[in-house]
Amino acid sequence: MAVVTVGVPAESAAGERRVALDPGAAAKLVKAGRVVLVEGGAGVAACFPDAAYTAAGATVTSRKEVLARSEVIAVVRFPDDGLVDDLRSGQLVIGLLDPLNHLATLEKLADRGVTAVAFELLPRTLSRAQSMDALSSQASAAGYRAAIVAAEAFGRYLPMMITASGTATPAKVIVIGTGVAGLQAIATTRRLGAVVTGYDVRAASRREVESLGAKFLTSSVSEGAGTGGYARALTDDEQKIEQSELAAALTSFDVIITTAKVPGRTPPVLVSAETVAALRCGSVCVDLGSSDRGGNVANSVEGLSTVTDGGVIVIGAGELASDLPTSSSQMYARNVVAVIASLVPADEIVVDPTDEVHRNIIVSHRGEVTSKAVREALKLDPVPSPKDSDAEAAEVNAS
Amino acid sequence: MAVVTVGVPAESAAGERRVALDPGAAAKLVKAGRVVLVEGGAGVAACFPDAAYTAAGATVTSRKEVLARSEVIAVVRFPDDGLVDDLRSGQLVIGLLDPLNHLATLEKLADRGVTAVAFELLPRTLSRAQSMDALSSQASAAGYRAAIVAAEAFGRYLPMMITASGTATPAKVIVIGTGVAGLQAIATTRRLGAVVTGYDVRAASRREVESLGAKFLTSSVSEGAGTGGYARALTDDEQKIEQSELAAALTSFDVIITTAKVPGRTPPVLVSAETVAALRCGSVCVDLGSSDRGGNVANSVEGLSTVTDGGVIVIGAGELASDLPTSSSQMYARNVVAVIASLVPADEIVVDPTDEVHRNIIVSHRGEVTSKAVREALKLDPVPSPKDSDAEAAEVNAS
Repeated sequence: MAVVTVGVPAESAAGERRVALDPGAAAKLVKAGRVVLVEGGAGVAACFPDAAYTAAGATVTSRKEVLARSEVIAVVRFPDDGLVDDLRSGQLVIGLLDPLNHLATLEKLADRGVTAVAFELLPRTLSRAQSMDALSSQASAAGYRAAIVAAEAFGRYLPMMITASGTATPAKVIVIGTGVAGLQAIATTRRLGAVVTGYDVRAASRREVESLGAKFLTSSVSEGAGTGGYARALTDDEQKIEQSELAAALTSFDVIITTAKVPGRTPPVLVSAETVAALRCGSVCVDLGSSDRGGNVANSVEGLSTVTDGGVIVIGAGELASDLPTSSSQMYARNVVAVIASLVPADEIVVDPTDEVHRNIIVSHRGEVTSKAVREALKLDPVPSPKDSDAEAAEVNAS
Repeated sequence: MAVVTVGVPAESAAGERRVALDPGAAAKLVKAGRVVLVEGGAGVAACFPDAAYTAAGATVTSRKEVLARSEVIAVVRFPDDGLVDDLRSGQLVIGLLDPLNHLATLEKLADRGVTAVAFELLPRTLSRAQSMDALSSQASAAGYRAAIVAAEAFGRYLPMMITASGTATPAKVIVIGTGVAGLQAIATTRRLGAVVTGYDVRAASRREVESLGAKFLTSSVSEGAGTGGYARALTDDEQKIEQSELAAALTSFDVIITTAKVPGRTPPVLVSAETVAALRCGSVCVDLGSSDRGGNVANSVEGLSTVTDGGVIVIGAGELASDLPTSSSQMYARNVVAVIASLVPADEIVVDPTDEVHRNIIVSHRGEVTSKAVREALKLDPVPSPKDSDAEAAEVNAS
C-alpha cells in the first residue's frame, strides 16, 4: 500500500507566525501511518522547533523536498506564487486559501490538476464539519487576542478597582459583530472585569451575548442573519441606518472591537471617521475586520496601531490569530487533520460529490473548478449537480 | 488668608507617561481653596488634555511660572536637575523621590531649605497612611499591567479553551513576591483563566494568595517578613537557598512574574540565566523588579522585551505603572491630595514631629535632612528624637 505523505512548508506571508501542523498533530498523522515532511524552521515562530517535529516522527527537510515528495500540502495562508508554481497534478493543498480573493491563481491550480481545499468554503452550520472549522478556530484566537490587545493599549484598568486610593470605574467595552470572534472577545473582556455590550444586526445573537453576561444591542435593521454561519452583507441603505444608530451609541464606550469580515468583499465601515473623532482621548478601537482593502473602522491601517489627533488608538488587526501562534497553530492543525481524515481516508484522495463537506470545501479537482461559489465568481457555467455526477465519483490515486 | 498654590510640572523622565495630578484631583484642590498651576501638556500622555485642567479650575501655564509661583510642587518621579535647581526655600516638593538613590541631590535640597516628601518613606502599615500610599497604588497598577503584558507576549491562550477543534490547557503562571503588585498580578492572571501560583519568602502571605484562588509556594527560608510593608532583603546564603529551590520549581511554568524591589538596593536575582535557559520556548518572564541596576531575572533589560536563543521572552518592566498612565495618575493624584491635606491643612506647611507619617515621609525641612533613613544613608548624626524637639514643632509659613 502506498503511503500518503503530508508536507508542511513554512508560511510565506509577511508577519505570519502560524504553521499548518504542530508537532502534536504531526505525531497523530505519523501514528496513523502517514509520512510527514516539515520545512526546516516552519514552526519556529510558533515555538515549535525542528527538533519537536523530529521527536514527533516527522522529517525536517528542505522546502523543495517537501513540495516534491508530498501528496498533501498543508498551509495556513494562501501560498506565495513560487509555491503555487511548484504544485503539480494530483496534489492536494489545504489552507485558508481565501478563494474569492485568489480567483485567477485558483483557476490556474485547477488547470494544472491540483485539488485545492479552502476552509472558507466549509458549510459551517453542519455539526459534522465543526472539527474542520478553521475559520472558527482562528476567529476564536483572534477574538481572545482582541481583548488582550485592547487591554494592552488602554491606559486605564479594565476592571473596577477598589483600593485605599479610591475606586476606579470599570471600562465600557462594545463588541460589534457577535460571531465566534466577537463572542470570544466578549468573554475575555468580561473575564478582565470590563462592562461589556455585544452588538449584532442578527437579533438572534441576543441569547448568546447575554449568556456571557454582556448586554445586547441591535439595530432596527435586525434581520441580517445570513447563511452558512456568516452575517449577510447589508445593503447600502441598511448599512447607513446601522451606522447612524451605532454612531449615536458608540461615543460612550472606552473600547470598541469590530469583527465584521465578509468573505471576498470589502469589509463594511461600522465606525466612521466622525465617530472615531468623537471618542474620548485614550479610547481604543481594535478592528478585526481590517484588511488591505479597508476595515470596519474608517481610520484603521492593517497591521498597525495608530493614534488620532484626539488620542484615540486605532488598531488594524485583521490577522490577530497569527499573534497567538502556538495556540492558533495547534487548533488549526486539528482542523487540517480532520480534513485529511475525510478526504484521504486511506492512501488516496477520495472525493464524494454527495458529501456536503466535500462538495463545498473543494475548490478544484481533476482539472476543474468544482466549487459553486468560485465558479460563480469566475463566471463559469454551473457544475453538474451531484446527482448527475454520481457515476463519476471516481477515486484519484494520490501517489 | 494666603492661598496655597499647588504646581504640577510635566514629568521629565524618559518614557514617563504619568502626571502627578489629574483634572479630577485638581478640581478637588480648587474646591478646597487652593490654586492649581499645571504646565502645558503635562497630562497629555495620560490622556488629560490642557482643556480638562482648565475646566477643572486649574491654570495651565509655563513650566517657569509653575515653579516660580507654587508653594507645593507635585511630581511623580524624581525631578530632573534643572527642576531641582529651580526649587527654593519654603517650597514643598512631593513625589516618588526614590531618596536612597538621590542622596546627594536631596542633601542639596535640604541645604536650600526645600521641604521634600518621599512617598517611599511612608510607614505603610499605618492604616491612617493608606490614602497616601503611592507605592501601593502604583504597585497595584504595575501588577495588573504585568498580567496584561504577559498575556500579550505569550503565544498561547492563558485560559483553558474547550472548542470544536479540541481543548487547550490553561497556562501555568507563577508570581514571585506577593506584595501589592504580586497580588494584583495573581488576581488578573486568575481572571484571565490561568492556573496561578504565588511564591513568597514570607510564609504569612499564604492566606492572601490562597484567598485569590491561587496556590501558594514558599521556601525553607520562610521567615523573611520585613518591617514597614516590605519583605526584608535576604542574606546571601538565604538568597542562594531560595534561588535553588525556586529554580527547581520554575521550569514547569509558562509565565513568571517577579516583583522583588528592595528600596535603594540592587534587586535580588530570583531567576538565574540557567533557569531562563531551561524554560520552554515561548515562556514569558515579566520582571517588575527590573531597574538600571539590574532586575529579578538575570537576563532582563529595563524597559525592553528581549527574546533568548531558546525563545524565552524576558521583559524588563520596572516602571509598568507608567504604561497604565490614566489610572495610575488618578490613583497617584489621590495620594498627593491626601499628603497635601495632612501637611498643608490650611495655608501653611505644618510639620508635626510627633506624627509618625510626618516624621517618616519628610526627607528635609527647614534646612535639615530630617529623615532617619536618609540621615543614616548619608552617614549624618541621628536627628534628635521627637520628644526632644517637641518644643520646636514650629510652623513654617509656606508663602
